[in-house]
Amino acid sequence: MGVSGVGKTTIGRLLSDEKGIPFFDADQYHSTENIAKMSAGLPLDDEDRKGWLFALNNLLQEELKTNSCILSCSALKKSYREILMMGLEQQIKFVFLKGSYEKILEQMKSREGHFIPPSLLQSQFDTLEKPLDAITISIHKHPEEIVSEICHELFEKSEIGIIGLGVMGKSLCRNFSQKGFRISMYNRFVEGKEEAVAENFKNEYPELEPSQAFEEMEAFIISLQKPRKIILMVNAGNPVDQVIAESVKYLSKGDLILDGGNSYFHDTIQRQKDLAAKGIFFIGCGISGGEEGALKGPSLMPGGDEEAYDIIRPYLNAIAARDKEGKPCCSYMGESGSGHFVKMVHNGIEYAEMQLLAELYGIALAGGKDPDAIADLLETWKGAATGSYLLDITSSILREKENGDWLVNKIIDQASNKGTGNWATIEMSREGIPATLIATALFARYLSAYKILRTGLEGALEKKAVGLMLDEQVLRAAYEFARIINHFQGFWLIGEIFRKQGWKADFSEIARIWTNGCIIRSGLMQELVTEFEKDSNLFLSAFFIEKLQQLRPSLTKLVSSAIAEELAVPCFSEAVNFINALATGKSTANLIQAQRDYFGAHTYQRYDGKPEQYFHHQWPADV
Amino acid sequence: MGVSGVGKTTIGRLLSDEKGIPFFDADQYHSTENIAKMSAGLPLDDEDRKGWLFALNNLLQEELKTNSCILSCSALKKSYREILMMGLEQQIKFVFLKGSYEKILEQMKSREGHFIPPSLLQSQFDTLEKPLDAITISIHKHPEEIVSEICHELFEKSEIGIIGLGVMGKSLCRNFSQKGFRISMYNRFVEGKEEAVAENFKNEYPELEPSQAFEEMEAFIISLQKPRKIILMVNAGNPVDQVIAESVKYLSKGDLILDGGNSYFHDTIQRQKDLAAKGIFFIGCGISGGEEGALKGPSLMPGGDEEAYDIIRPYLNAIAARDKEGKPCCSYMGESGSGHFVKMVHNGIEYAEMQLLAELYGIALAGGKDPDAIADLLETWKGAATGSYLLDITSSILREKENGDWLVNKIIDQASNKGTGNWATIEMSREGIPATLIATALFARYLSAYKILRTGLEGALEKKAVGLMLDEQVLRAAYEFARIINHFQGFWLIGEIFRKQGWKADFSEIARIWTNGCIIRSGLMQELVTEFEKDSNLFLSAFFIEKLQQLRPSLTKLVSSAIAEELAVPCFSEAVNFINALATGKSTANLIQAQRDYFGAHTYQRYDGKPEQYFHHQWPADV
Repeated sequence: MGVSGVGKTTIGRLLSDEKGIPFFDADQYHSTENIAKMSAGLPLDDEDRKGWLFALNNLLQEELKTNSCILSCSALKKSYREILMMGLEQQIKFVFLKGSYEKILEQMKSREGHFIPPSLLQSQFDTLEKPLDAITISIHKHPEEIVSEICHELFEKSEIGIIGLGVMGKSLCRNFSQKGFRISMYNRFVEGKEEAVAENFKNEYPELEPSQAFEEMEAFIISLQKPRKIILMVNAGNPVDQVIAESVKYLSKGDLILDGGNSYFHDTIQRQKDLAAKGIFFIGCGISGGEEGALKGPSLMPGGDEEAYDIIRPYLNAIAARDKEGKPCCSYMGESGSGHFVKMVHNGIEYAEMQLLAELYGIALAGGKDPDAIADLLETWKGAATGSYLLDITSSILREKENGDWLVNKIIDQASNKGTGNWATIEMSREGIPATLIATALFARYLSAYKILRTGLEGALEKKAVGLMLDEQVLRAAYEFARIINHFQGFWLIGEIFRKQGWKADFSEIARIWTNGCIIRSGLMQELVTEFEKDSNLFLSAFFIEKLQQLRPSLTKLVSSAIAEELAVPCFSEAVNFINALATGKSTANLIQAQRDYFGAHTYQRYDGKPEQYFHHQWPADV
Repeated sequence: MGVSGVGKTTIGRLLSDEKGIPFFDADQYHSTENIAKMSAGLPLDDEDRKGWLFALNNLLQEELKTNSCILSCSALKKSYREILMMGLEQQIKFVFLKGSYEKILEQMKSREGHFIPPSLLQSQFDTLEKPLDAITISIHKHPEEIVSEICHELFEKSEIGIIGLGVMGKSLCRNFSQKGFRISMYNRFVEGKEEAVAENFKNEYPELEPSQAFEEMEAFIISLQKPRKIILMVNAGNPVDQVIAESVKYLSKGDLILDGGNSYFHDTIQRQKDLAAKGIFFIGCGISGGEEGALKGPSLMPGGDEEAYDIIRPYLNAIAARDKEGKPCCSYMGESGSGHFVKMVHNGIEYAEMQLLAELYGIALAGGKDPDAIADLLETWKGAATGSYLLDITSSILREKENGDWLVNKIIDQASNKGTGNWATIEMSREGIPATLIATALFARYLSAYKILRTGLEGALEKKAVGLMLDEQVLRAAYEFARIINHFQGFWLIGEIFRKQGWKADFSEIARIWTNGCIIRSGLMQELVTEFEKDSNLFLSAFFIEKLQQLRPSLTKLVSSAIAEELAVPCFSEAVNFINALATGKSTANLIQAQRDYFGAHTYQRYDGKPEQYFHHQWPADV
């Protein structure tokens, strides 16, 4: 691509000879009307070009079924390039030939038989929307050199660079390679601990054969096509800043860094600002799916400048999981920070989903079931509204044995966390949004860590003989109910924070990209895609109101029974308390307002007062 | 005070003549042994001085029963001054006469009949520990000028300055004035909104007659005795920084600022650092008791440099509430930030205490009681373990009527907050300490704010006809139990954060200063003073274990019954879930660790593994 006269045909033909792949000149595909217009010295308008661009896209679709090919086409506007790429986003690479007005004018004047008069050149320059995602090659050199440079950039350099070869980084590398991308992989060198990590990894899997492995940052970055697209898969926090500082030394304006770790979204907002000042694009992208999802197709939640997102979009779409209609589970979340924020809430929902399953497991154990029997029960819940990836792996875990005994029994009951759950809880605490199941699940993990205290108190207090027999339908209905509350709260948190940040939330689209690839994919999530299309408030959904109405007695039954048996069911309890409080138009917080006014003169509002009117009562001074 | 030869006797006698109050020369109270030693040119050691200082303290104790008086005494060491002040901390003011070695040597040589030979002067200078809390006067001027300066500083300047005359600031001003301190009061001038606030306030109360009122910062600061002691009573956040920036312009090294607001303790740590660099002392002091407590005696939680605390200690002790043994409810919490941290947790405990009362109120309403009947019930709980200030004001609130109807019914049920509850929740989320009742109470307030959502859902879901009849003994026992959990969690949070910060926590002492003056004073708090003396872990207290054992069935009964009736009892539920989880040596978090390892290869620990040994299992790849 490039303006008329820049040398597209010459270079395209040379490249075709060099690589032995067919060459097409877009100018040959103009309608006679267009040719007549141009010959008369009139510039084409966008309507004139439309049919031509669609025809070229058809040509490419056909050719690319069997061959590589080269097309020369001015493709001056982003919208033209979008038509050319339709359905081929992940297969097309633009090479933008760039030269000065004078140089191009000189070239045009020296040509013969070309039907675009030089007078059109200025309009070409005016129309040009420079591509951010193309390989840009200067024409101020000999054509053979240009071709050689294109070949080098296009066929020797890597399309994507991945930094950090932990569990997730490695899976992503394999995913990209399996999709046919040429990648460069970088892992730091730490003597005696991390040596030749990338090289060894490359040798481990055949699909990594075309990839390049590095432990030297400069060489890694030089190996990448410009604009460079680098994906960071390092631990959240300082490591991200360190790697950015190290890599940015070798980057050029227009290059892009995508942070695919679980970074704190406030950090992402700051990093995006810092890098924007240096002309480097930055995308914070939530990636869910764990090791397996990252390999087979994760759910992706990118946030940042929309034009930066366009650069990396085709690559992300290529590796993402597919929803049930085959669309990638990847969607632009919004401005800087929004992607990591949504991922943070995703993980928060995940915390609560896991805790609910752990509580169910505890209730079932208390009912005398062994892990296999619990797995049997959970497996009857598959597929329907209660089915989910986490349910599946839970029954799989419960069946796992080692020397005839259940593995789960050998695992110490102290749950760890990596930060996203506490960030979500901090955010809801700071901003006033009680997404309580997430907080409760976090605190349950925290409490599990205090094993010495727990063991001590168990010894000190008498233990009730537990024999909790609950109908399986009650368990299932309560679980389904609690999950609805958990999802309501998670999306509520997203909605409230998006509103405060001035971002736009599309709940249905977020639910859609969570229907596959990610850890919280489930039957319920699929239902949410549909219901959120109608309204972002689930409590306005007749579908869910009916469900809640029908399931509520079971949740009530489960919690009151489990508590009566002295079991800990914090997340189920919180679900029932939340719905009980939320279904109470007139609560008891009036008493709290009275107390606050009594001891601190903090004032209160009255039903018979005006909005924004605050009262202070002269309470009895001494009681 | 001051080194030998500095002119203490001369100045003391002149001051005595000027003010008509008796003068005593400490040198006249030496034992003959001491006099002999000094005459022989031998310096006295601390043992020599002890009896002498106690005699002087006795003299002052006697004199001050009826008179003001002046004592000249070298009082070179802090430990000497402490003996002099014993029991008189709030009545004694040190004037430190300060001069150069040369000037004093010259004065000594020109004297006759003085039994300390000039050769001792250097040892005097060496021994001198300069007082941080004394009025320091240079002797390089004429004696009459020195006396006039002392009179000016001592009798015209204010001992304490208070900035910010909101509800709490005003009460503190009156408290200081009622205790006989001369104070300066400052309130900013905001045209049309805050004009002559200090002046008008001064005119409102007779006890403020000797005080000075300002709305000009420089004049306010000039009006204070050096080292200046300024108490900030402005809103937490930016206002504190603004007032510090404005006042610091006029302060001198050695002056002290005490922030008595509910500042975020991380901010306090930063402010202390910033001010230390300027030579200004900074104390962050939690003040609890609300309007009334601030007036009649609050509970005070100061933190900061211990030497800075010594400067302000007598003043804080003077205005604080008294515990049942008459000791001030004021105690040094530890280094910078610790005071505001402890106050933050105090307020967190308060949130949960208020929420528990609100839930009891809701349960009683559901049982068909009217507010007076609920007040009747609560009043039977006074005095014993369930008695508390918050219980008292709650029954007082419930009885309050307006035109024959209960006021509490007219108050809108949307609870507000001022930040300490969410800071406490943020802190526990960040640091891994599940003090869940605080978090739950915070979230209950947050949920109350969503009144439109609540009212909408109430309309959408069918409402169960409520008729909850619980035995009054069950209510009381459950409440007592939940309060123990709340207090355990609050102190646990204090202990864990103190440990991480490297501060030293004395739980019994913290409980002691919370037995009076503050909002969470209660019978239980008094019990905690004793139990914490034995162990900081309440669950090692036979007293509390027995209580928990005995009360637990009631809490279980209350929660399971209330949930069965579809009532929201989040704090009671959390108390029962917490104890159920904490009394479970082997929980279900093993399943969570297995899930984390399954999807994210996060590893787990095993009962048959070594400590610090982590395992990853090869789970079935696909389920």
